[in-house]
Amino acid sequence: MREYNINLDAKKMPDAWYNIMPDMPTPMVPPLHPGTLQPCGPQDLAAIFPMPLIEQEVSMQPMISIPGEVMDIYRLWRPTPLRRAYRLEQALGTPAKIFYKNESVSPAGSHKLNTSVPQAYYNKISGVNELSTETGAGQWGTALSIACAMFDMKCTVYMVGVSFQQKPYRRSMIEAFGAKVISSPSQTTEIGRKLAAEYPDSGGSLGIAISEAVEVAVTSGGTTKYSLGSVLNHVLLHQTIIGEEAKLQLESVGEYPDVIIGCCGGGSNYAGISFPFAPDKIKGGKNIDFIAAEPAACPTITRGTYAYDFGDTGQMTPLLKQYTLGHNFMPPGIHAGGLRYHGVATQVAHLVHEGVMRAVAYQQNPCFEAALIFARSEGIIPAPESSHAIRAAIDEALKCKESGETKTILFSLSGHGHFDMTAYDAYLSGKLEDYELEQDVLNKGIASIPNLG
Amino acid sequence: MREYNINLDAKKMPDAWYNIMPDMPTPMVPPLHPGTLQPCGPQDLAAIFPMPLIEQEVSMQPMISIPGEVMDIYRLWRPTPLRRAYRLEQALGTPAKIFYKNESVSPAGSHKLNTSVPQAYYNKISGVNELSTETGAGQWGTALSIACAMFDMKCTVYMVGVSFQQKPYRRSMIEAFGAKVISSPSQTTEIGRKLAAEYPDSGGSLGIAISEAVEVAVTSGGTTKYSLGSVLNHVLLHQTIIGEEAKLQLESVGEYPDVIIGCCGGGSNYAGISFPFAPDKIKGGKNIDFIAAEPAACPTITRGTYAYDFGDTGQMTPLLKQYTLGHNFMPPGIHAGGLRYHGVATQVAHLVHEGVMRAVAYQQNPCFEAALIFARSEGIIPAPESSHAIRAAIDEALKCKESGETKTILFSLSGHGHFDMTAYDAYLSGKLEDYELEQDVLNKGIASIPNLG
Repeated sequence: MREYNINLDAKKMPDAWYNIMPDMPTPMVPPLHPGTLQPCGPQDLAAIFPMPLIEQEVSMQPMISIPGEVMDIYRLWRPTPLRRAYRLEQALGTPAKIFYKNESVSPAGSHKLNTSVPQAYYNKISGVNELSTETGAGQWGTALSIACAMFDMKCTVYMVGVSFQQKPYRRSMIEAFGAKVISSPSQTTEIGRKLAAEYPDSGGSLGIAISEAVEVAVTSGGTTKYSLGSVLNHVLLHQTIIGEEAKLQLESVGEYPDVIIGCCGGGSNYAGISFPFAPDKIKGGKNIDFIAAEPAACPTITRGTYAYDFGDTGQMTPLLKQYTLGHNFMPPGIHAGGLRYHGVATQVAHLVHEGVMRAVAYQQNPCFEAALIFARSEGIIPAPESSHAIRAAIDEALKCKESGETKTILFSLSGHGHFDMTAYDAYLSGKLEDYELEQDVLNKGIASIPNLG
Repeated sequence: MREYNINLDAKKMPDAWYNIMPDMPTPMVPPLHPGTLQPCGPQDLAAIFPMPLIEQEVSMQPMISIPGEVMDIYRLWRPTPLRRAYRLEQALGTPAKIFYKNESVSPAGSHKLNTSVPQAYYNKISGVNELSTETGAGQWGTALSIACAMFDMKCTVYMVGVSFQQKPYRRSMIEAFGAKVISSPSQTTEIGRKLAAEYPDSGGSLGIAISEAVEVAVTSGGTTKYSLGSVLNHVLLHQTIIGEEAKLQLESVGEYPDVIIGCCGGGSNYAGISFPFAPDKIKGGKNIDFIAAEPAACPTITRGTYAYDFGDTGQMTPLLKQYTLGHNFMPPGIHAGGLRYHGVATQVAHLVHEGVMRAVAYQQNPCFEAALIFARSEGIIPAPESSHAIRAAIDEALKCKESGETKTILFSLSGHGHFDMTAYDAYLSGKLEDYELEQDVLNKGIASIPNLG
């Protein structure tokens, strides 16, 4: 009997997150304060985050216990299945073994719930009863609204105006969980009113939505905090439950991956699947090929500069050493909205720079082609973001077909595409565009990277 | 530790479907041929169904083996989790124990895949390479398109015109799996052209779409067969895997249900959760309250007549003894499209008539209220159809709260509502209508029930 789903007994679900910081092969440089450009400390983040999350952000402990209340909610959908993609292997005719961690089974439909739940929890125990955030494609807004419903907290989501119009189902889903969704730029914040007046025809941007959500937190007098869905270390940390579970599941069938793949925007899903395996390469000498799959339309790692840069267009966040296309870089409107970020988590960037990991970039048409091969064999419609990981996994499997190698490939299926069917429509009707980045678009982004001498 | 998800080991997944026919408390009357009104035999169905399915339709074997090829595909998502709804119980403050079988985890998002896979398989081994079907809300079309993709078969789905326009994401999903979707009435069939000319402004109906799909099969010379997603015994049979698994899962935690609930349209989901428990009441004397939850706008069992009637508006199908509102009954446009059927499976009807089972009917607003209580505690957005079962389960749990009884309640979560967010939008904005059926609407339906003397 073929064991398609490798389940992990709920009693064996890991009860601590893995923190990669102490295992880094070389020391990392600190974040810099956006005003002083001096290394910034925990107190600089206290206006927008609660102390337990700030402590995780700077922690050097190797493992951080998952609170019982968070475990209880994780158990609603975790451990997630690890699936052996027998049918995909057969469709490709590859000798490779392909495994994927199915994060699409979460109530939010993606991995994002792994961090929204602990973020809501730590805010709640810190006396915070309301969270503000931004959302582009809507995955993160959905995940935070569910987490807030679980802890009986209020939630306000600034949704990029264009998405608010184009993705009404995502908005409805967020509202179904009791959160308030505001089209950004809005009239509810000072920065929103200012930018709405400056750009009357603007459909909004993630940069503007972040500014609105941060303003709500900063001006609340402490009752409201801000919540971020990727990029920061505490977010990456919460996602390591993905890779920790996958490791145990692979062990249970006597397997260990030769290749580990995740799609990569801000880096939280990619870190989630890869970080728990990283020390085996850094300290254990294992030969693992770690691949971050990113969009060619926003090729942060493959074509970005390794430098300090801001996390947002408005230059309000600390500067992080990262691969960046520049905080003013404006990526084309690809459907993988979750990967349209100019930078990448500093921990992922550091490991790429040190040669532990690498990145590949894909145009969206080959990604949707891979998504349909996957859907028709495995039955699941993947999110456009996840299709980048699938493309990379299929390419690695096809290399094995050529070479005859029987590699074990592991990738993260970060989410399903139930709310992204317009993208599939565009692909199926031949109307999906690929984007070759023009040099002046790249130059404009690069010009915004601060020159710190 | 609370065990939220009661998983069943893949090795323990049942390998045979349960056929209720030999366990019926009293004999059933046969279907009648629509032309002769005489009992109809297997040969009368051969033009539209392959012989292995016709054999199952009339089988008196208690268990029917699930073929290995079907088991292999079932294993992509089965066994499905049985979840103890601790958080819902807590939200209600009930002493009742609530369990639900989560069929929303299937790639199709509903229980429909349990029958589309074996239907495709039996057609394939009978030399049929193409299936035609109709779909209203789109759940069945999705499920059949996935099954056909798995067996490399062609699939044509006649989608009710109104839904084709209103639910473009459902259409896209069906197309993503390679099926052809045609808005009905269409120009591709004789009956379609005829009805499109007769009713130029018609948005179509399930009755018309069925006629088109059947015509394609009948006129194909045997290369194409027709596939139905509910009502018939072979369909109910395939769904019993739901209740069989649930029974094993409850046993594993030492539980047995006092109340078993499923939403009920044609009856396949309801039969799936309930039939495997039925002999324990019929023959074993167990005191189980079986509840079929139906919409007040289409109250087939609660307000229908127990009589022979056609399965379709066009009077092309055999007549079945059933509860029916009349084959001309036109239900209001509620969002639970899967429950808008004038009749119910003859096996379900027989058990209600014999006092083994009962039905309740709900308006859609209280169902969506229940759906949101469920979503905010359990994290899952249910399909509008499933919300009827949730309403019934909540009502039973609240009765326990009043009486202090600690009943064990089991219901089937037949599907998720990711493609039904417009309905949630309508509910959240207070624009969702309840429908009190007017007497002349009921009378018009009743008048179409054949008088067989």
